[in-house]
Amino acid sequence: MIQNAPVRGFAPSEFATRTQKAQDLMAADGLDGLLLMSEAELAYFSGFQTPFWQSPTRPWFLFIPASGKPVAVIPEIGADLMRRGWLEDVRTWSAPQPHDDGISLLTELLSPLATAKARLGIMKGHETHLRMPLSDWERLLAALPGLSIADATGLVQGLRMVKSDAEIEKLAHICAIGSATFAATPDFAREGMALDAIFREFRRTAIGLGADNAPYVVGGADQGGYADVISLPSQRPLRKGDVLMLDTGCTWDGYFCDFDRNWAIGHADDAARRAYDVLWRATEAGIDAAHPGATCRDLFHAMSRVIAELDESGGAVGRLGHGLGLQLTEQPSHAAFDTTALQENMVLTIEPSVTYGNGLMMVHEENIVITDGSPRLLTKRAAPELPII
Amino acid sequence: MIQNAPVRGFAPSEFATRTQKAQDLMAADGLDGLLLMSEAELAYFSGFQTPFWQSPTRPWFLFIPASGKPVAVIPEIGADLMRRGWLEDVRTWSAPQPHDDGISLLTELLSPLATAKARLGIMKGHETHLRMPLSDWERLLAALPGLSIADATGLVQGLRMVKSDAEIEKLAHICAIGSATFAATPDFAREGMALDAIFREFRRTAIGLGADNAPYVVGGADQGGYADVISLPSQRPLRKGDVLMLDTGCTWDGYFCDFDRNWAIGHADDAARRAYDVLWRATEAGIDAAHPGATCRDLFHAMSRVIAELDESGGAVGRLGHGLGLQLTEQPSHAAFDTTALQENMVLTIEPSVTYGNGLMMVHEENIVITDGSPRLLTKRAAPELPII
Repeated sequence: MIQNAPVRGFAPSEFATRTQKAQDLMAADGLDGLLLMSEAELAYFSGFQTPFWQSPTRPWFLFIPASGKPVAVIPEIGADLMRRGWLEDVRTWSAPQPHDDGISLLTELLSPLATAKARLGIMKGHETHLRMPLSDWERLLAALPGLSIADATGLVQGLRMVKSDAEIEKLAHICAIGSATFAATPDFAREGMALDAIFREFRRTAIGLGADNAPYVVGGADQGGYADVISLPSQRPLRKGDVLMLDTGCTWDGYFCDFDRNWAIGHADDAARRAYDVLWRATEAGIDAAHPGATCRDLFHAMSRVIAELDESGGAVGRLGHGLGLQLTEQPSHAAFDTTALQENMVLTIEPSVTYGNGLMMVHEENIVITDGSPRLLTKRAAPELPII
Repeated sequence: MIQNAPVRGFAPSEFATRTQKAQDLMAADGLDGLLLMSEAELAYFSGFQTPFWQSPTRPWFLFIPASGKPVAVIPEIGADLMRRGWLEDVRTWSAPQPHDDGISLLTELLSPLATAKARLGIMKGHETHLRMPLSDWERLLAALPGLSIADATGLVQGLRMVKSDAEIEKLAHICAIGSATFAATPDFAREGMALDAIFREFRRTAIGLGADNAPYVVGGADQGGYADVISLPSQRPLRKGDVLMLDTGCTWDGYFCDFDRNWAIGHADDAARRAYDVLWRATEAGIDAAHPGATCRDLFHAMSRVIAELDESGGAVGRLGHGLGLQLTEQPSHAAFDTTALQENMVLTIEPSVTYGNGLMMVHEENIVITDGSPRLLTKRAAPELPII
């Protein structure tokens, strides 16, 4: 077990601060309320955490008024857990109830805003989903004539991008667990072991070292490299000359790490070594460029310049890193389209990728915190040369 | 490891059959196409499986035409994996691309339907979410004047409710792994052990016995009972007189088990024994009532009659079981509102719950397959009396 775990949960003052910041931004944007419905946003503003989100059956809602504490409108099954948190106004219904899954309660709550022809913010932009039935959303709108809907995606994502010290402690802890898991991988990932058995042992090791879970484990292994980076494991045994990649999002108290490691089995060919070297230096360039005021586009170009030594295609991944926190991937994106300026306490992945040879690809990834100087590495930096098992 | 695992994946003929059945229903409903976008539906019709769904960044689309194979419209990062499956027409874009995340590709694909003023089915009803940005959905509609949108929730859920023999084999396998994990639990869950350490060991055991993962583990333990059934674990050590409950959704090849077990630590008080006995008999009544032609409402009433010996409140869970398959919870619901008639090869949870004492609750759960005779139990039936550790 990795020692010195931070305290679980957050002080009520942390939620109060987050809510106040949201309300300040809402005031600036002319929003009279914010209706949230997804797992990360409910966790962020209420502290509510449960794996029950894996059941798609019931919708969950959190309303942030112009001032005062958020109001939860949730299924009765979550009432006890929500009331143990910092919220006071928790309204529930016996869900599932297909003909009225929270819609009457929301209508009652939002009617004053509709009457006042106010503006309600919801998250409807890039990287969001509507976590309720679309037909219920349409019914709610029809029940609230006069209400105007505004897109508050940027407002919420902008807040969540910059982490508090307490959030960074949790992220550092899960990254340390991830690093220890990767360090232990050569002890069990051996020639002849099937890839699915390696994944299984990887998960057991991560949990044994203190991860709450290892929900995201992907990777591949084949002669000289792998062809995609989002696959489940095959049953193929590792062979000499394989390049093995494992990429993981492990969690601790709701927060994710997200990074990967590569190994060669027995020996590595020149093409794989060369791809590894280019990516290691591209990662270094990304880390060097990551300081307050630089943009995500700057990071993208800093990494792209190195990657171009081997590959000018731009690759299949679509970006070279992203934000990290309550979700495996969060805003911003290290891509040419993203001009977000880096700020202190953003937690980011630096994730260059390259295509090479006959349809092969390779990925590298590290997790960092932006500081007022050089970024702080949360992951134990990958070896500068492709390690051999 | 639990032996005799079924073959992973499905024969192409299974996907062809599912698609043909959907197309027959579409024809009957006057639908000229079906646009799907969530993990379970893409897996069901294309075989595409990846943990990458945990990243909210990129939308994924599958279009089922009136005849012929489905068409995938997906991010380039998934192209290699999707092309290894049974589909032929895989259209990709370099995602993320916030200003056009698949919308141009979808517009091109669906324009002939719009021109013909055709009807496109999407899933917008109970238990669904819109897994794409709402603003992108609005843009897509605006780009396709003439297209009419119909709710195909019942069509797709109705198909998925009845499992094939190959699906049932996978569900039986993961239920066997779950049963073996619960059988092993008294070996490690002991007085003095903290609840979070028990969860950790439970996950490691399930994966060691062959589960691909144990994404859903919830439960509780306290003197005489627990107060909710969706919580993450505390750090509180087990004490004599506690009732411990663990509920798990483990996965194998994309399919879930979903059941729970209860134990008393050292000794059990009369109230806990009584609640357990009522629930065990309520489960028995639910299983006895589960035959083709009976409705979910019938199952609900069969269980409720027994539960009423102790509790007439109806409880906080909102239903007494549900469907099971590619999702932890699927249609139908054992509730008074659900008149779905049971059919052979439906896989269901039987899940009565009861409230008792001072704010305590207890849950029981088994997984069954509907047959032409008595249902087949996929889980090893819980002991008829509250087991003591």
